[in-house]
Amino acid sequence: MKTRVHNFNAGPATLPLTVLEKAQAELLDYHGLGMSILEISHRSTAFDDLMTQVEANLRQLMGIPSSHKVLFLQGGASLQFDMLPMNLLPKGGSADYIINGVWGKKALQEARKLGNARAAASSEETIFDRLPDPSRADFDPQAAYLHFTSNETIHGNQWGEAPSPPSGVPLVCDMSSDILSRPVEISKYSLIYAGAQKNAGPAGVTLVIIREDLLDRVPQNLPAMLDYRLLAEKGSLYNTPPSFSIYMLGLVLRWLLDLGGLNEIAKLNAKKAEIIYQAIDQSGGFYRGYSRPECRSLMNVTFRMASEALENAFVKVAAEQGLIGIRGHRSVGGLRASIYNACPMEAVKALVDFMAGFQVIHM
Amino acid sequence: MKTRVHNFNAGPATLPLTVLEKAQAELLDYHGLGMSILEISHRSTAFDDLMTQVEANLRQLMGIPSSHKVLFLQGGASLQFDMLPMNLLPKGGSADYIINGVWGKKALQEARKLGNARAAASSEETIFDRLPDPSRADFDPQAAYLHFTSNETIHGNQWGEAPSPPSGVPLVCDMSSDILSRPVEISKYSLIYAGAQKNAGPAGVTLVIIREDLLDRVPQNLPAMLDYRLLAEKGSLYNTPPSFSIYMLGLVLRWLLDLGGLNEIAKLNAKKAEIIYQAIDQSGGFYRGYSRPECRSLMNVTFRMASEALENAFVKVAAEQGLIGIRGHRSVGGLRASIYNACPMEAVKALVDFMAGFQVIHM
Repeated sequence: MKTRVHNFNAGPATLPLTVLEKAQAELLDYHGLGMSILEISHRSTAFDDLMTQVEANLRQLMGIPSSHKVLFLQGGASLQFDMLPMNLLPKGGSADYIINGVWGKKALQEARKLGNARAAASSEETIFDRLPDPSRADFDPQAAYLHFTSNETIHGNQWGEAPSPPSGVPLVCDMSSDILSRPVEISKYSLIYAGAQKNAGPAGVTLVIIREDLLDRVPQNLPAMLDYRLLAEKGSLYNTPPSFSIYMLGLVLRWLLDLGGLNEIAKLNAKKAEIIYQAIDQSGGFYRGYSRPECRSLMNVTFRMASEALENAFVKVAAEQGLIGIRGHRSVGGLRASIYNACPMEAVKALVDFMAGFQVIHM
Repeated sequence: MKTRVHNFNAGPATLPLTVLEKAQAELLDYHGLGMSILEISHRSTAFDDLMTQVEANLRQLMGIPSSHKVLFLQGGASLQFDMLPMNLLPKGGSADYIINGVWGKKALQEARKLGNARAAASSEETIFDRLPDPSRADFDPQAAYLHFTSNETIHGNQWGEAPSPPSGVPLVCDMSSDILSRPVEISKYSLIYAGAQKNAGPAGVTLVIIREDLLDRVPQNLPAMLDYRLLAEKGSLYNTPPSFSIYMLGLVLRWLLDLGGLNEIAKLNAKKAEIIYQAIDQSGGFYRGYSRPECRSLMNVTFRMASEALENAFVKVAAEQGLIGIRGHRSVGGLRASIYNACPMEAVKALVDFMAGFQVIHM
């Protein structure tokens, strides 16, 4: 087997080695049943126990109160861009979106296919190098909800505190890229959704955490697979769930609990990000952070160099030395190191060592 | 490790042991990349190669002509119940459904949420113990499409030849439970869809095979994740795909090719079904097949016994002897042995041996 590379992929992303080893060890025989987790029925006691445990561990880690339902869905955050307005944007109503990156913009575009939705605030004018200032936002006090993206992976910005919606407006968050990376106060949120493939597990499962009373607003007669109320009633088992992805999510949650929970992982994440941003800031301009310091993402460190040629050389030599996934998103270029929960400190240290060495040679 | 049980689950279902072993062996290191298949980027060359190979192998196995596009989606057949009418049932149009079981009925119910749809033929009157007679069907010659379910898992019936729609009406098939179990002539079909978790792999990926010219009928401005045309344009990579499920599907396709393809697996499937149906028919009424002989499913063998108490005893003792998943669907009761592609002959032989022994004791 090849030595594990240092994996800075933006998602699907690196997973904890112990999680992969556990999955490998029991892949042919789940819990002594004589079947793989891939082969057991989603109507079996074993799967029922798995779902119960995964939800209980998620609730414990995130402090999800009983006021909120947890759903395990498919289709990624992109399908939530549509399900959210289908379920919670009534005809004649309007929804507000804060746009601090490409994903929020896509969410708004999708919502506009289905109803009225507005950008209450946006930092697109400065190409998402910062967060929009909530104090200058044009919030609609009657909005069906206020949507924001807690962390934008492409330009690399992140909200510290969540923006506050006008009184009575439900707060909705696309938390795909920083869920489980730090504690959040769930009671502030009416709905949180997240594709799992960054901090929570592999691709194929999408988390939705929804305040139960919002389910009363879901219109009648939605397509079954797009109906939050029905999916909640059925305990995410209206049809066959993506069972392996849910199982892997469960292993990741267990790993987080064993680490000490979200306070502990948040400290580690802050430390990892600090090390790379410091390397950038102390490079005398050889590396330049993309996002404004006060808005920097702890998950996706975006930076540039003096020329594209230099950036290409950086990516190429880094890959040769086992540092993978450093190229910025194809839509913006530059460099990006995604350092989600499972990215180990040694990968971060290897990266800053490499950055220092590369600078010496190319300065 | 526990000895592998004989797994007759209806889906998720048994997978070929060699496929599981291969997945296990390379779970920590996919193709020497130093990353798991669960950790590689869906925008990487390695994943691109995987998608290309999976599609090529599917095309080769099923003889899919270049007139048809192949999509790898999420949400199972249940989401296709909605996507199909969203994409191909125009306002003011009407779609025809042939109902030979619970899944076809659900598909029709969903279509009716979104437009006009009719049951052109149904065998519900006899509780799906047979297929409706196509010669007595009330087909709409102007229908947007004619939908049928090639194999109904719950009551256990299966079409031999596909029903013929009126000239010019596109034929659409939910092939979830018998795709890849036998050769079919793809050119007859305008659209085929199938959740993978029966014959094609694990849960989490859904195949859609669509005649390319039908994409012209897709209305503008559909939600992105529900838009066949957009998903086809993006090569199923509009967003992060369910990469592990696609990888597993690829291993199953490779296994089928190595076996000799669909003609070979069809012979094996016919033989397996014959052995169990013969055991039923020769039991002097102790076991009674549910479906009429001429409509019997080769995938899901459904049968009853004289009393529920006896059926419960059968399920219990079978499980004790390592025969798992024999209970009929919760909506109908009775017994059901699902014997998809990956169910080995030795499992079938173990089942008929058990049936004979159980009969001797309980007759």
